[in-house]
Amino acid sequence: MDGLIETITALDNPSVVGLDPTLALVPPQFLEKAKQQQSQYPHEIMDHSKLVTQAYVLFNEAVMKGIAGIVPAVKPQIAMYEAFGEAGIQAYIDTCARAQDLGFYVLGDIKRGDIGSTASAYAAHLSGVEGVTQSSSWHEDAITVNPYLGSDGIDPFVTASIHHHKDIFVLVRTSNPSSGEIQELTTADGRLVYECVADLVSVWGESSIGEYGYSRVGAVVGATHPQAGRALRERMPHTFFLIPGYGAQGGSAQDVAAMFDDQGSGALVNSSRGIIGSWRKHVEYNPSMTFDEVFALVERSSRDAALEMRDGLRSALLQR
Amino acid sequence: MDGLIETITALDNPSVVGLDPTLALVPPQFLEKAKQQQSQYPHEIMDHSKLVTQAYVLFNEAVMKGIAGIVPAVKPQIAMYEAFGEAGIQAYIDTCARAQDLGFYVLGDIKRGDIGSTASAYAAHLSGVEGVTQSSSWHEDAITVNPYLGSDGIDPFVTASIHHHKDIFVLVRTSNPSSGEIQELTTADGRLVYECVADLVSVWGESSIGEYGYSRVGAVVGATHPQAGRALRERMPHTFFLIPGYGAQGGSAQDVAAMFDDQGSGALVNSSRGIIGSWRKHVEYNPSMTFDEVFALVERSSRDAALEMRDGLRSALLQR
Repeated sequence: MDGLIETITALDNPSVVGLDPTLALVPPQFLEKAKQQQSQYPHEIMDHSKLVTQAYVLFNEAVMKGIAGIVPAVKPQIAMYEAFGEAGIQAYIDTCARAQDLGFYVLGDIKRGDIGSTASAYAAHLSGVEGVTQSSSWHEDAITVNPYLGSDGIDPFVTASIHHHKDIFVLVRTSNPSSGEIQELTTADGRLVYECVADLVSVWGESSIGEYGYSRVGAVVGATHPQAGRALRERMPHTFFLIPGYGAQGGSAQDVAAMFDDQGSGALVNSSRGIIGSWRKHVEYNPSMTFDEVFALVERSSRDAALEMRDGLRSALLQR
Repeated sequence: MDGLIETITALDNPSVVGLDPTLALVPPQFLEKAKQQQSQYPHEIMDHSKLVTQAYVLFNEAVMKGIAGIVPAVKPQIAMYEAFGEAGIQAYIDTCARAQDLGFYVLGDIKRGDIGSTASAYAAHLSGVEGVTQSSSWHEDAITVNPYLGSDGIDPFVTASIHHHKDIFVLVRTSNPSSGEIQELTTADGRLVYECVADLVSVWGESSIGEYGYSRVGAVVGATHPQAGRALRERMPHTFFLIPGYGAQGGSAQDVAAMFDDQGSGALVNSSRGIIGSWRKHVEYNPSMTFDEVFALVERSSRDAALEMRDGLRSALLQR
């Protein structure tokens, strides 16, 4: 986790922008541009999946140009790309590669998890594929994983993260409304299920605690559960948090500030729609704008929203 | 689940073959063949990922030709393909499409799960992509999903399964050694965590119970927990089971027979390595065989192993 922490410190900004495009979040001009680019290759069949995902790649480029130098990390949500099959996966990988080129820490939100032998195959997200050229690897610096299968489903990810200097974030307490159905079940010894998972996460991280006291095995803890988040911060002193659910989902800067450690470190706060969808509320937007105009507007509005989030987090951390 | 049940009944065989290739499970002649096929396209860069995954597609073809007309379903494990990036995803989709052409029920073992809005994107595995040609959809008849996020992470899959006449299988009690760490935690009301999940699965299935009494929301219950499996069979009378862990992982035909209903229905038993790796133990195999010879051997040995499994399950069900 040391690399991430250093990037956060350098920018004094513990936030990550979710690159989760949908057709509703991408201005129509990007789709038009993708169509023009495809028509330059008359021998290729016009394919809706390729078109949409190419528009996503262009859109991510605008967002990333806007937030580069301000935000340390991006978190592409693979589901949004995977929905378009192999073309989507290519767009996901292209996005990750471009993000690394622009200097971002790339957190692949893939939530994978399976039995040991299968989890080893998924761990290729971190280790790359043996014998494969660099261009075919995933370009992720970290991924999210699901703990429901227990240690043997997580070990291959832990091993790969250590060998390849990468990180993982295990789902502990997710931000969605029905997350409590399983995660908040009370167990016989008084712990809640997510607390049992938290204790497992601490154990999984024991062998990879870095220079700043945090292991390579982080935890996903939703901003929508501020009390639980505070308690988990104390319970897991060596576990870095990825905090989704800020902004659109309801978590405030004050809510998340309590999930940081005493030095104001130990957590990374995600916002997706709040940043990448900010162009939609911008007074300057109108549908007759050219591609270049909208590209610049997405860039500018993403930057402004990212700065606002950064400043909100900074002041909430100071006011604790 | 009606379509699956009818195919099982027609073949009198409640088994599914896992298409989980690895380099160790695929004879080297398949990789050679893939190389020859690639060299016919001199303008394409020779890519290790494409080579390996093309070998997987050829290997799956041999296995499927062997088991067609005997086994009702195949279960490709997406992790094995995803490990090779976008080329792997293409090979996974090609495998699913070919399997449907050959008449198999295709159960995509993808274990996806996320918060509601993201789960909706993953549900494109079942619904396909709007505006996309048939060739770009996933060709899955069912998928496996992870319940850790609760109802709002499952609802989009349930909705898609109903609208598109497909099925889902929710992880309840997995077959791996450390599955108990979370799944077997005792909760305050005396139920184990996996029993709580089982009860949620029953609720999620209530609106889609079909002609044969089973809903579109199935459960994954490992063969390695025969007692739990028997109890779950009683607890979830309308839930069809996918039973992994037979054979290589240790579950016997007797173990799984107890997880069927009184009519000998209600479950589908998976074997992967036991079928697709059977050529490795075959006396006739030797490394100097030609591609065509090995292809025929994989076909024959897969068929023999599938027949043996079918007969083992049939007699265990009769002897109950």
